[in-house]
Amino acid sequence: MANNELSSLRVKDIGEQGLLAKLQRFCPQEMIGDDAAVLVTTPGKSLVVTTDVLVDNVHFSNLTTSPEDAGWRAAAANLSDLAAMGATPLGIAVGLGLPEDTSVDWVERMYQGMTQCLQRYNTPIVGGDIVRSPVVTLSITAFGQADGDRIIRRSAAQVGYAIAITGIHGASRAGLELLLNPQICQNLKEAEKAALIASHQRPKPRLDVLPILWEICPSIIPVAGMDSSDGLADAVLQICRASNLGAILEAKQIPLPAAFNNWLTPEQALNYALYGGEDFELVLCLPQYQASALVQQLGENAAIIGTITSGTSVLLHHENAEIPDQVLTLSQGFQHF
Amino acid sequence: MANNELSSLRVKDIGEQGLLAKLQRFCPQEMIGDDAAVLVTTPGKSLVVTTDVLVDNVHFSNLTTSPEDAGWRAAAANLSDLAAMGATPLGIAVGLGLPEDTSVDWVERMYQGMTQCLQRYNTPIVGGDIVRSPVVTLSITAFGQADGDRIIRRSAAQVGYAIAITGIHGASRAGLELLLNPQICQNLKEAEKAALIASHQRPKPRLDVLPILWEICPSIIPVAGMDSSDGLADAVLQICRASNLGAILEAKQIPLPAAFNNWLTPEQALNYALYGGEDFELVLCLPQYQASALVQQLGENAAIIGTITSGTSVLLHHENAEIPDQVLTLSQGFQHF
Repeated sequence: MANNELSSLRVKDIGEQGLLAKLQRFCPQEMIGDDAAVLVTTPGKSLVVTTDVLVDNVHFSNLTTSPEDAGWRAAAANLSDLAAMGATPLGIAVGLGLPEDTSVDWVERMYQGMTQCLQRYNTPIVGGDIVRSPVVTLSITAFGQADGDRIIRRSAAQVGYAIAITGIHGASRAGLELLLNPQICQNLKEAEKAALIASHQRPKPRLDVLPILWEICPSIIPVAGMDSSDGLADAVLQICRASNLGAILEAKQIPLPAAFNNWLTPEQALNYALYGGEDFELVLCLPQYQASALVQQLGENAAIIGTITSGTSVLLHHENAEIPDQVLTLSQGFQHF
Repeated sequence: MANNELSSLRVKDIGEQGLLAKLQRFCPQEMIGDDAAVLVTTPGKSLVVTTDVLVDNVHFSNLTTSPEDAGWRAAAANLSDLAAMGATPLGIAVGLGLPEDTSVDWVERMYQGMTQCLQRYNTPIVGGDIVRSPVVTLSITAFGQADGDRIIRRSAAQVGYAIAITGIHGASRAGLELLLNPQICQNLKEAEKAALIASHQRPKPRLDVLPILWEICPSIIPVAGMDSSDGLADAVLQICRASNLGAILEAKQIPLPAAFNNWLTPEQALNYALYGGEDFELVLCLPQYQASALVQQLGENAAIIGTITSGTSVLLHHENAEIPDQVLTLSQGFQHF
């Protein structure tokens, strides 16, 4: 990129958020700020579009990820973005950049993992592009369909809404830890280890939540939400920022993997749950009554973990009265640059 | 990608076509073989999706391409794929991989070029993804809408159909030559040089052809076609292969830039036109009567250049009876690996 006419400011100087801010002026305002963009195609119907780019050694690595798992995870992440918007998948397009010495086996096995995940949700691969590149790059664009009044947006939270999550958090981060350091935590049972590792390698997009949610919530009630792919704390913070509101979370209400009791301190466990990321659950904000009904119907590890408040701060409240409330911030989350 | 369990077959061993053949079994059969995939969303309406991945130093280079031109060309290529299917654009999603020392200026100017092109065709950028990567990678997925019975497919050609092209060919290749070797061809006028260079830097997707085409062609007549982004010869060959038919092309009917007369031998000129690529015109196969009307209405450099025949070979016929007909083949075209 040597070009003397260009100014010397580099992407690393302004970071991901700084670059996004500069590029957002090229997009229509209403397309910005959710997991996916929404295009009204025919009256009452919306096309929901989301893109993820994954780069070898940045987003996946052969150390912890088989080709099948890399494919599964990429597909799951995109389907989860559709679920986060309330959309049912129509298909995905796959752009693939490959060095010419890439193993054909690797590519086929990655596609196998991707289609294993997609088939569970009746989602076809509808073509794409394959090109030569110095680094393995996987670019997935998923598109889905939603009813015009059934879109879940980050900005739709209201004061007094319950914050419901659809499952346990921290499991994916713990699974990654076990893959990187197989010798740690000898007192976990093999089945517990396997379950945590599976959470990391084969996350499940929560598309199953949508029909239950729409059954409980009449379309006149706006539902706010997103997925917890970048961490539970990040999800609550993003929803609050987009809605210009705050939240209070109850630490003891956050469902954790049972195996954490034999392994992590309460602080470590909470840290994995809030900042670990990649659990791909939904974080939904809706009226208390509907939230209770949703959590009850989802069963297992769904829970109401807090309430949307006026103000703009997100507080974490601990059961132990000696621990002061913590203010959660976005800067503790993951940044791409 | 060191993984001992993987077989030793590499992507370079089987090439782009070999890899595509292996991966096509992961896609529904009906999605394969056109410039874009078609999904029926609501009765009578189809969603058309196309993806392109562009990699620095493979698909663009600062030597011949300013950041604005790189952006324009990427957008134009995707809109051209929609035009090739008969679809009107709804929006594009942009996936961007960037080294952290990428100039912010470069990224902004690339987006400027992209939106300059998109705005001409009322197409918004509907979000995307930005990630860290060792190489600048631009992945664009474009979405369009088409009436269910107004899809242009490669496989729809019929014996006796005329082969119409919407403009001159070879200009983009000639423009690239002038950028790489500014000193060649002193006897071209500056305006001629500038026009050829503009053809390369700012190609125009032929979305303007669609309303004219549909006005002329009743919906019961299937239209076959694609764009000539990979070369005019490639387009005719792909249509013939998909339709399981052949063609005869008249060399003297292929419209060339007037400037070629002062510069290239007839053989070189024809080579640029057939194999140069990136002219982004449409190659349409339709009944003779409708083809004539289309060419007349498009004016300028649109032309009927041949006829679809039974058999499977694509022959190039020369006016000079001493030159034997040439059989055109796909292998002369551009391969990614």
